[in-house]
Amino acid sequence: MAHTTIRGVIAPNLTPFHADLSVDKARYVAHARHLLANGCAGLAPFGTTGEALSVGIAERMDVLEALIEAGVDPARLIVGTGLTSLPDTARLTRHAVDQGVAGAMILPPFYYKNVSEEGLYAHYARLIEMVGSEKLAIYLYHIPQVSGVGLPVRLVARLREAFPDTVVGIKDSSGDWENTRALLAIEGLTVYPGNEMALIEAMGLGAPGCITATANLNGEALSNAIHLIADGRLEEAEPAMEKVKAFRAKFKGTAAIPAQKRLLALASGEPDWAIVRPPLDMLAVEAGRALAEELEAELGFSVFQPAA
Amino acid sequence: MAHTTIRGVIAPNLTPFHADLSVDKARYVAHARHLLANGCAGLAPFGTTGEALSVGIAERMDVLEALIEAGVDPARLIVGTGLTSLPDTARLTRHAVDQGVAGAMILPPFYYKNVSEEGLYAHYARLIEMVGSEKLAIYLYHIPQVSGVGLPVRLVARLREAFPDTVVGIKDSSGDWENTRALLAIEGLTVYPGNEMALIEAMGLGAPGCITATANLNGEALSNAIHLIADGRLEEAEPAMEKVKAFRAKFKGTAAIPAQKRLLALASGEPDWAIVRPPLDMLAVEAGRALAEELEAELGFSVFQPAA
Repeated sequence: MAHTTIRGVIAPNLTPFHADLSVDKARYVAHARHLLANGCAGLAPFGTTGEALSVGIAERMDVLEALIEAGVDPARLIVGTGLTSLPDTARLTRHAVDQGVAGAMILPPFYYKNVSEEGLYAHYARLIEMVGSEKLAIYLYHIPQVSGVGLPVRLVARLREAFPDTVVGIKDSSGDWENTRALLAIEGLTVYPGNEMALIEAMGLGAPGCITATANLNGEALSNAIHLIADGRLEEAEPAMEKVKAFRAKFKGTAAIPAQKRLLALASGEPDWAIVRPPLDMLAVEAGRALAEELEAELGFSVFQPAA
Repeated sequence: MAHTTIRGVIAPNLTPFHADLSVDKARYVAHARHLLANGCAGLAPFGTTGEALSVGIAERMDVLEALIEAGVDPARLIVGTGLTSLPDTARLTRHAVDQGVAGAMILPPFYYKNVSEEGLYAHYARLIEMVGSEKLAIYLYHIPQVSGVGLPVRLVARLREAFPDTVVGIKDSSGDWENTRALLAIEGLTVYPGNEMALIEAMGLGAPGCITATANLNGEALSNAIHLIADGRLEEAEPAMEKVKAFRAKFKGTAAIPAQKRLLALASGEPDWAIVRPPLDMLAVEAGRALAEELEAELGFSVFQPAA
């Protein structure tokens, strides 16, 4: 396929729920459109931040369709579709491909641990065969600290070489810069770091941007920093990056999910924004207020009117 | 519900595949019936040993229906139904309940790691509400070394207390005897150890038997040992247990899946029995032959005619 790389910051957009825990599609679409209108070059629906593995297969397909029906350009979407089984991953991936999305971000099968490189290779090879579409563009999804199963650099290189038209990139959420650097050395592979901590270095080695949880709140600042880097204006980019990195440092791992949802609840006045599905826990109102005050006092960031 | 406990050895029956990786339903049913006719008091379809998380939702429902249509008594089945999301777990669980099974063996949501006890409690509480059936009997499934998410004893006690008609038991595959002992102290909870290593001790504290991978090959010997224990014939039970424990020691963790499948391929002359789905790897023929010879030479166990 003629694959087009999304350049800039991509938000793994949050999934809002109603009080009965069903997906709030209207708010999902509104948040997605807001992000795209305010700095985000693309979205990665159903990543770890979007509580993908807490959302059912039918719900995920339904929400993706709603997003596109609402006018969101599928060419700006890299959709998470990885489950533990081949048939269900193939089903979700084929659906995303049929919607015309830019790519599918696919976790390794993550139930069995310490599996072989050969076993992981066979999973992706078979998946590509099962989806059976020239339109399929896979972004591998490496987030071993959550999934429990990583994708060794050697395996990524092997998949890229074997399926050059299909395995186009990777999201590296390991937070391990040496790993990201090794991936950036793989010929023709698009590498999105899973956070903004080493963005200047990563873009210097060819990364087109990043896919980062904090883009749900801080997309505009991230976007501005990325444009400064892309334009080679490093003297301005460096302080801009320091600011987004300081923001990021306020959110630890998956706790960024309930924290950002609580901040969005405070900002929007819609308390349901704070709802997460089990097994995650909601962040309490008081903790959210304290975090909002800290962001304002220390970084001049207002959740009520995000700084540009 | 009037829940009946299955007493004896329960096999987490293996899932056979065709060469194209589709489930071989005919062989699935034949193996299940063979196990029930040869020592196994029950089956636990779609446990870790049954490669449950590598099989799709629709496939799992289809196979369960085929099993029951073939005449297997659903009262002898404790079916694995745990996935990472509430909607899909509820869907699979409700289907199993509608088939009249003895119980549903349910993993905690296992994508996010280091989640809170409260978050896990909320998941099961919500699941029970979503399934909405008095016929639901849940066996919690604790296998942290594979799933990456365990069920603390305190949480199990809390779920048992809050849902005494629904949370009836647990399969403890941790291999941690202290944990199993602590679970056996929970009032009214049925505890199946996930292997045969401490069966005399566990049954002495009230366990009705065990759910163990090796029952796929060694069900009859396990069954005999359990009956000796249940009858209080410990002098005979002890050497019988030493023998099944020595058998077990030949199979390490999830490697027991490809190993037992290869042995069944050799025994049946049907090479497809050896097939596993990615990310697991098949055991090579030579390694299977060497294992079969070792079992024969050291334990007098013939895969070609399992010892009683």
